[in-house]
Amino acid sequence: MNPLVSQTLSTAQTIIEMAATAAFALSGIIVGARKQLDVVGIAVVAFLAAFGGGTLRDVLLDRRPFFWVANSWYVWAVLALCVMAIVTLRRRHLTMTERAMQWPDACGLGLFAASGTQIALDAGMPGLIAVLMGVLTAVFGGVLRDIVCNEIPTAFRDHRPYAVCAFAGGAVVVAIERSIESPTFALAFGAVLATTLRALAIRFDWELPRWQAK
Amino acid sequence: MNPLVSQTLSTAQTIIEMAATAAFALSGIIVGARKQLDVVGIAVVAFLAAFGGGTLRDVLLDRRPFFWVANSWYVWAVLALCVMAIVTLRRRHLTMTERAMQWPDACGLGLFAASGTQIALDAGMPGLIAVLMGVLTAVFGGVLRDIVCNEIPTAFRDHRPYAVCAFAGGAVVVAIERSIESPTFALAFGAVLATTLRALAIRFDWELPRWQAK
Amino acid sequence: MNPLVSQTLSTAQTIIEMAATAAFALSGIIVGARKQLDVVGIAVVAFLAAFGGGTLRDVLLDRRPFFWVANSWYVWAVLALCVMAIVTLRRRHLTMTERAMQWPDACGLGLFAASGTQIALDAGMPGLIAVLMGVLTAVFGGVLRDIVCNEIPTAFRDHRPYAVCAFAGGAVVVAIERSIESPTFALAFGAVLATTLRALAIRFDWELPRWQAK
Repeated sequence: MNPLVSQTLSTAQTIIEMAATAAFALSGIIVGARKQLDVVGIAVVAFLAAFGGGTLRDVLLDRRPFFWVANSWYVWAVLALCVMAIVTLRRRHLTMTERAMQWPDACGLGLFAASGTQIALDAGMPGLIAVLMGVLTAVFGGVLRDIVCNEIPTAFRDHRPYAVCAFAGGAVVVAIERSIESPTFALAFGAVLATTLRALAIRFDWELPRWQAK
Repeated sequence: MNPLVSQTLSTAQTIIEMAATAAFALSGIIVGARKQLDVVGIAVVAFLAAFGGGTLRDVLLDRRPFFWVANSWYVWAVLALCVMAIVTLRRRHLTMTERAMQWPDACGLGLFAASGTQIALDAGMPGLIAVLMGVLTAVFGGVLRDIVCNEIPTAFRDHRPYAVCAFAGGAVVVAIERSIESPTFALAFGAVLATTLRALAIRFDWELPRWQAK
Repeated sequence: MNPLVSQTLSTAQTIIEMAATAAFALSGIIVGARKQLDVVGIAVVAFLAAFGGGTLRDVLLDRRPFFWVANSWYVWAVLALCVMAIVTLRRRHLTMTERAMQWPDACGLGLFAASGTQIALDAGMPGLIAVLMGVLTAVFGGVLRDIVCNEIPTAFRDHRPYAVCAFAGGAVVVAIERSIESPTFALAFGAVLATTLRALAIRFDWELPRWQAK
């Protein structure tokens, strides 16, 4: 691939990654504030939301060091974000912030699903397992956040496709890597697909088929 | 041991394992449906119930690959089971299904406790730790299922012996391996003992001695 | 360092460790009894409270064997403690026991935060990550206990400094190891600082600055 294109893609990836981590951390801050946690609790929930999915994936794949250990400035950044949120956010801002966060969150969903799938493929996992690892990377931060806050995880309950978009993106990554063997293209295409699906789902209020064992 | 007997036992083990994994996954589907999760949530809870205990054991023992990675058709099977359940189950079937599942569940309790204990012994764990690993293998799938569904785990609360049966089976495995050193016999005897105890407990409604710090 | 002093410190550490583990286990027994768990559930919650934090730290650092595997008499001791509690405790004792446990709990908070930080530094973690591992060692036993009992963790919610004391102790350990390179002194000073802060917080009813996104 043209080195300039590859350079641009890698910069884009870093920027999306930071924006998405911030969006995940903010979702933790908002849920924690709603549950009236103290400032320590809010910070912990922000960390779980931001780093929980990737950390669980790395534990399951037995990869060390974790990305937030290798780049420990990520931890400083989330700490700084918590302080800024506590200083500037007021209750009336919460819902607004939550709505604004949907879009970086959708980007993060796509990027983390695609990169999680790729990391699992590189670790020699079979295709289906790699896709599940991608889904887990993208989704389990929010799941841990909700479990600690004593809620049934939103991702399992609100009938709007979330994990399903991640699954589609991961499946595309596996398909492309298996056919034309271009990791960069696989990552970009998988991430864009999952993000687009999620954005469409938000925009048009898609719902998963209901089943409540009627 | 006679090769024919050993062959038969190993086939029996595989069949019980599949039936028990299906029973654990179905318990997750039923709990998820009762909590009105969406289809993704139901599938995740089914996975946690089916694979959670063995995965946690493997993380604690630092064993890789997980059994559902080495045999990824297990994951396909649970996915297929979820689809079948969603297509065929109706609300009025849930309680009936739950009752029918008690028996394969009891078989799984015995088999997973005994095999979990044996795996931990092979990894060089001391006897007591190995028994606890067996209990954890058999019980923690259900515990994770209930935590995600925002319930206090049934296994810790319903006063009927469940983990205790697994503990007894695991202890027998350790005792037999330490005395006559026959792994096959230890596995078979431990599994049968735990399953029998559990079946008796269900049949005669045994209760653990109560203590609520009166 | 004078060998006599070093010997005395190491004995003191062992005694504090045992007292603190007992205090953590008892906190699990009390929470479990209040939630009306059965005896198995109470024992599991006691184990989670006593060993959960250190085990999670060891999983994240990829250290094996766990301390309760290397010293499996710890498991016997917690089992014995559960039996003793069930035989001797009555409901009217619970609150009294809880208050009495605050002090060994504060000692454990300090010791586990300091030793957790040191273990992470020895494993080559950067300073901030090591401090977080210390906090996690001291705090996550209680967090897991509360999650299993379907509560929002006390440590995140009661506005009294707990994790913050552990953080201060861990930070001092890092500072001393980086400057004068005396592990024994770092451990002792960090543990004493965190314990003292926690004791003052209990005694004078300190509160964290409130933020509920007013």
